[in-house]
Parts: sequence; C-alpha cells; structure tokens
Amino acid sequence: MKNIRVIAFDADDTLWVNEPNYRKTEDRFCELLSGYMPAESVSEELFKTEMENLPVYGYGAKGFMLSMIETLIRVSDGKAGLELIDQVISLGKELLKKPVEVMEGVRDVLERLNGNYRLVLATKGDLLDQERKLSWSGLQEHFHHIEIMSEKNTRGYRKLLRNIDCEPECFLMVGNSLKSDVIPVLELGGYAVHVPYHINWAHELVDQEIDNPRFLEAKNISELLKILQ
Amino acid sequence: MKNIRVIAFDADDTLWVNEPNYRKTEDRFCELLSGYMPAESVSEELFKTEMENLPVYGYGAKGFMLSMIETLIRVSDGKAGLELIDQVISLGKELLKKPVEVMEGVRDVLERLNGNYRLVLATKGDLLDQERKLSWSGLQEHFHHIEIMSEKNTRGYRKLLRNIDCEPECFLMVGNSLKSDVIPVLELGGYAVHVPYHINWAHELVDQEIDNPRFLEAKNISELLKILQ
Repeated sequence: MKNIRVIAFDADDTLWVNEPNYRKTEDRFCELLSGYMPAESVSEELFKTEMENLPVYGYGAKGFMLSMIETLIRVSDGKAGLELIDQVISLGKELLKKPVEVMEGVRDVLERLNGNYRLVLATKGDLLDQERKLSWSGLQEHFHHIEIMSEKNTRGYRKLLRNIDCEPECFLMVGNSLKSDVIPVLELGGYAVHVPYHINWAHELVDQEIDNPRFLEAKNISELLKILQ
Repeated sequence: MKNIRVIAFDADDTLWVNEPNYRKTEDRFCELLSGYMPAESVSEELFKTEMENLPVYGYGAKGFMLSMIETLIRVSDGKAGLELIDQVISLGKELLKKPVEVMEGVRDVLERLNGNYRLVLATKGDLLDQERKLSWSGLQEHFHHIEIMSEKNTRGYRKLLRNIDCEPECFLMVGNSLKSDVIPVLELGGYAVHVPYHINWAHELVDQEIDNPRFLEAKNISELLKILQ
C-alpha cells in the first residue's frame, strides 16, 4: 500500500448513518399500509418497485419517495385516500431534512490522513441531498474532491480516476458495500478496504468471497490508520 | 476573448430541447385537474409548490414529479382518486424517457471548437437524467469534463473552475439562461455568451440589463464561431 496517493471514502453508512434512516421511513410506510398487507409483504413490494424504477430514477431519496407512492397505489389497489400519499411525501421530506450523524472515529481518521493523502468523497444518490449531508457533517474541509456518481461500477470509477488524474494502483477506496465500494475498484486494479456496517440495503448485498491481495477487511474505520502504517 | 482556453456549455435548451417537454407535461397535468381549477391557476399552484420544494429537492424531473403530486392533492382538496396520481407518475416517467433532440447547429459548433478549446458541459438537474440525455445526444465525445451542478451560482462555478483548474479570465460560459449561465460567471470575472431560447422556465427569468465587456449576446449557437474568430 506504499504507492497509495489518493484515498476515496464512500459516504452513506461509511462516514455517516444512512440506511437506518431509510429503514425507519420504510417501517412507517409499512404501518401506513398495514390495513392492506402485512409489513413484510409491503416491504417486498416496495423493493420490487425500487428495482424496477432504478434505471429511470437512479439512487436517492426522491426516487425512494416516488417508489413508495407507486407501491402505495398498487398495494391498496387504488383504494387508499390521498391523505396517505400526503403522509408519504412528509416521510420523504423528513428523511431529506434529517440531521447528519457522523460515525464514530470518522473525524479523527480524516484529520490524521489529511495532508499525507489526497482525500476524495465518492458517493451516489441525489446530488443536492449528498451535498447537503456533506455540508451538515462538517467534514467538507477534509476533501480535495467530491464525486457524486450515478452508479458505482467500473465505468463510474474509471471516470472518477480520470477526473482526479490518478492511476488505479495509487488509489484506495474505503466503504461499507462490497458491491459498490470494493469489487469494481479491485477490478480496475485499485485497492479497497471494506468497513462493514451492521445494516445494509438488500440491493447492495453480494454473495461473493473476495480473495485479492489488494483487498482488506477492517472492523471499523479507525483500523484504516493501522492498515496504512 | 483571446485568452479563452475552456468553453463550458449549458445543456438544457442550449444543446438540446428541454423546457418544451416540461411545458407539454405541465399542460397534460393541468388537463388532469381541469375539473377542479382552470389550467392557468393549476399552473400557478404548481410553480408555487416547485419554488417551495426547490431547497429540499433541487432541480430535475423527480422533484418536478413530486411537486405535481403535492399540487394535485392541494388543488383537488384531497378529493382526487389515486388513478390521477398514477397518471402523474406516468407523465413523469415519459418525460424521463423522452428521446433527446439536439438543437440545430450544435453538433457542428462542438466539432469545430473541439481541439482548439477544452469543452465542458455544465448543467443542473437530476444526475442520472442528465447523464442519460448526454449519452443519448451522442455529444459526449466532444466534452473533456462534465459538471452536473446542484445550483449554478458563483459558488457552483467557483467549484467547477477549481475542478478543471481554470482561471476565470480563461473561461467562457455559453447558455440560454441569464440567471444561471451568465450573471454568476461574469461576477467571477469569466466571459459569457447568451444564446436565448424562445421558451424559458419562469424561475430562470431575470429583469436585468447586462452591460459588461465580457458579455455577448448571440442569435443562435452557430454565431459562437464568429464571436470566437
């Protein structure tokens, strides 16, 4: 890892809490529809809608809101009242205005690495929402470059590397998703450190053992400092 | 203009048709609600909702869809059926899947400038939607850098200039909006060429005469070649 010049961090559930907020919103959404279907089934229907809409909406809270609305219409068979739609919009707006909770150890790690490495934020989701979270997190000053990606695949990372003028062998990605933060980066010849989070969106799960000399698993973000020593 | 090294182009209604598609969608939305209110009033209500939601949703089609839904609930006083919401979602998805219509002269201008200047695309809206339009336009190969901005103000342009490592006095912005493409760029000390479009979103209108030696008005995008000679 001696050749690493740039360290890129995923944001949601790596630097700050995200998925638990979506889960809480989803739980409340399922409650709204409890008269029509058990929570677990509503949840499955919502995931189905999200996956169908992903190519059109992309990632982020606004697409999530639109998918909840569509699911509500389908699950209630068009019979729910507009007040339920109104409540879904309120749930979504709450999610978008949620205060940002920076995860333990993050501030310290960024402070220590800054100066020795160029630090990059590489995230996906709604543009304005991610910028807002970064601004509210107070972590902005640590980053030399912010990349908000429509998809975290090899194509997206290739573009990022071009934008920051960095060779893959000098690039380390840190994040909680094997699918989005690890696999495509390793494929390009970069390094990746996986910092698991206790709760993951079903879409990010992969059933794959990773055996690659450029890959490391960390228990928490603070371990990154040891890894880089 | 001899010092210009980078030319940045706005996308919507500068490179390809956009606002007319939104207007058509809005017209159909107003028709849906014609039983509750005259079209003009629905349109005013929608604009009011959009402006209220802009700080939370930002620009783009998904925010537009959510604002239509919210307006529908308010205008119908919660009395419309869910099938109307369903139709609004369909209208929005159609808008997101609309083929891209590149404007006259654009391809030729980009081909002639490419090589002599670094060309940048600087636009706002939904990340995935703008990437899709660029890809469908077939214009991607002409651009050295794509910047999708959450807000086209001086702060946003300062960030863009930093990202592409360009001084304001070497930067020319071309676009149809005085508010988003001209005024903030002039403020930073850059150059701007305004190429008006016959139809503009009310939010982009400014009542301001611009008198600045670094500002020029063009009748159409092809005039840019003459201006740069």
